[in-house]
Amino acid sequence: MADFKQLAARELPQFDAYLKRELAKIQEPTLQKSMTYSVMAGGKRLRPLLLFAVLESTGQSIDETAFRAAGALELIHSYSLIHDDLPAMDNDDLRRGQPTNHKVFGEAEAILAGDGLLTLAFEWLATLNVTAEQRIELVRLLAQAAGANGMVAGQIEDIEGEHKTLTLAQLQQVHHLKTGCLIEVAVAMGAVLAQLGEVETTALRGFAQQFGLAFQIQDDILDVTSTTAEMGKAVHKDAAEQKNTFPILLGMSGAQEALHTTCQQAQQQLAQVTTFDRTLLNSFLDYFNE
Amino acid sequence: MADFKQLAARELPQFDAYLKRELAKIQEPTLQKSMTYSVMAGGKRLRPLLLFAVLESTGQSIDETAFRAAGALELIHSYSLIHDDLPAMDNDDLRRGQPTNHKVFGEAEAILAGDGLLTLAFEWLATLNVTAEQRIELVRLLAQAAGANGMVAGQIEDIEGEHKTLTLAQLQQVHHLKTGCLIEVAVAMGAVLAQLGEVETTALRGFAQQFGLAFQIQDDILDVTSTTAEMGKAVHKDAAEQKNTFPILLGMSGAQEALHTTCQQAQQQLAQVTTFDRTLLNSFLDYFNE
Repeated sequence: MADFKQLAARELPQFDAYLKRELAKIQEPTLQKSMTYSVMAGGKRLRPLLLFAVLESTGQSIDETAFRAAGALELIHSYSLIHDDLPAMDNDDLRRGQPTNHKVFGEAEAILAGDGLLTLAFEWLATLNVTAEQRIELVRLLAQAAGANGMVAGQIEDIEGEHKTLTLAQLQQVHHLKTGCLIEVAVAMGAVLAQLGEVETTALRGFAQQFGLAFQIQDDILDVTSTTAEMGKAVHKDAAEQKNTFPILLGMSGAQEALHTTCQQAQQQLAQVTTFDRTLLNSFLDYFNE
Repeated sequence: MADFKQLAARELPQFDAYLKRELAKIQEPTLQKSMTYSVMAGGKRLRPLLLFAVLESTGQSIDETAFRAAGALELIHSYSLIHDDLPAMDNDDLRRGQPTNHKVFGEAEAILAGDGLLTLAFEWLATLNVTAEQRIELVRLLAQAAGANGMVAGQIEDIEGEHKTLTLAQLQQVHHLKTGCLIEVAVAMGAVLAQLGEVETTALRGFAQQFGLAFQIQDDILDVTSTTAEMGKAVHKDAAEQKNTFPILLGMSGAQEALHTTCQQAQQQLAQVTTFDRTLLNSFLDYFNE
């Protein structure tokens, strides 16, 4: 079975082509350009890859239906980055080494590009080539993960936590909401498409939760240890802005230990899956050992 | 059969109570307050009323399922107003006689309140008490009407049209996208819930399209003839900002004539419906004769 890098090399060129082709269907020229700009700005496609990995691991094919469902995740992720980068929010000029959406298209246009992407995610799910039951379950899962009791709540809590010192539990909660929910729903959506049972779905969600947390710890560590060129965005901002991060709360070696423990917990969650090969999903944890 | 005012008097107090109760389920306190603030800020509930009218006219009951579907429309409408009022967009301080969302909660919070409402609309539809086929059709209709080929496109075209003179056809197209699509989808969603056939659905959509246009012509006329106290928002802004409006393009009497013609066309569209009583839906046009 492939590892996550082989999966990415095999699927992402076609997936990107699919996204581009579908986004070309937006008729209004400014929106078409601004929405496409951010979706095609070279993200890692982590959420789509997790969804693909669930399908591949369970013997399902990664076809246009998978691309469309995974695309909905990437639309939501892209919208959240556009809005997060706005002057009223994080006020970032760079994202993945490129000027942020509002820097290129203007602030009003960026707000609307985000609104358009968020709405389009649900249109894509509504027009998936699976049963109505599966489609509506995907809509429900994605809306709950991305919404006011999920990702949007994480954004607010992140803003409100900026000028106070959070406990480790509070910091983990912010990250769970802000990025974990959407990573978790990627595998849950894969499970719906693969029609998995409750035991496997719960194990996959537990794995993705820990994976998402590990991802955030790693991101915080890299903000301290990297250069802007390596990260493609401004670094060392966290300390300057007195943000709550794992290295600030736990010290650098404490953060590295937390990363290690979180990866172990991810592996333990995944070990509950006994009905299909876990190799591919496990390989996502190699991401943290490079 | 009731007219639209009787329908409003009978249903809106319960509908508002439903919205308030459901919005109270948002756990994050700032989001809970800011989202509720704008949804409960005293709108006319025009889109919900149109949906209710389709149900009432076809002998369906207006129950919690109807409230939830109509609520999704109102969440979308409220989000669009919050984002539209932002400093980067229309920069409005007043809406319905109250400070706009960003004036009360801050700009980042207003962006996120809008994002939360937009997402919640799809969660409500996904958890409606109707068949999966009906739910997913409602999601598809709403996403298409509100999205990048619908309302969001209208917002962009409105911004881009601000400093040039539009033709009447272009102005109508902007309004069709910006407000018409969501008004039209209100009756289309009612038709899905009432399981109407194609002929009735098409007639209802045609009626709603003309009704939406009439509504916009009336709004433009009122901007010229009203005071801030009457409108609950800043008036006479259109001329000051050299916006494209019906009175500016057609003159005041031309705009009044266009309003009259549009109402007649709405009536003609509705006349295609022969399988149920049209009185209630027709009464919505009284709105323009006061």
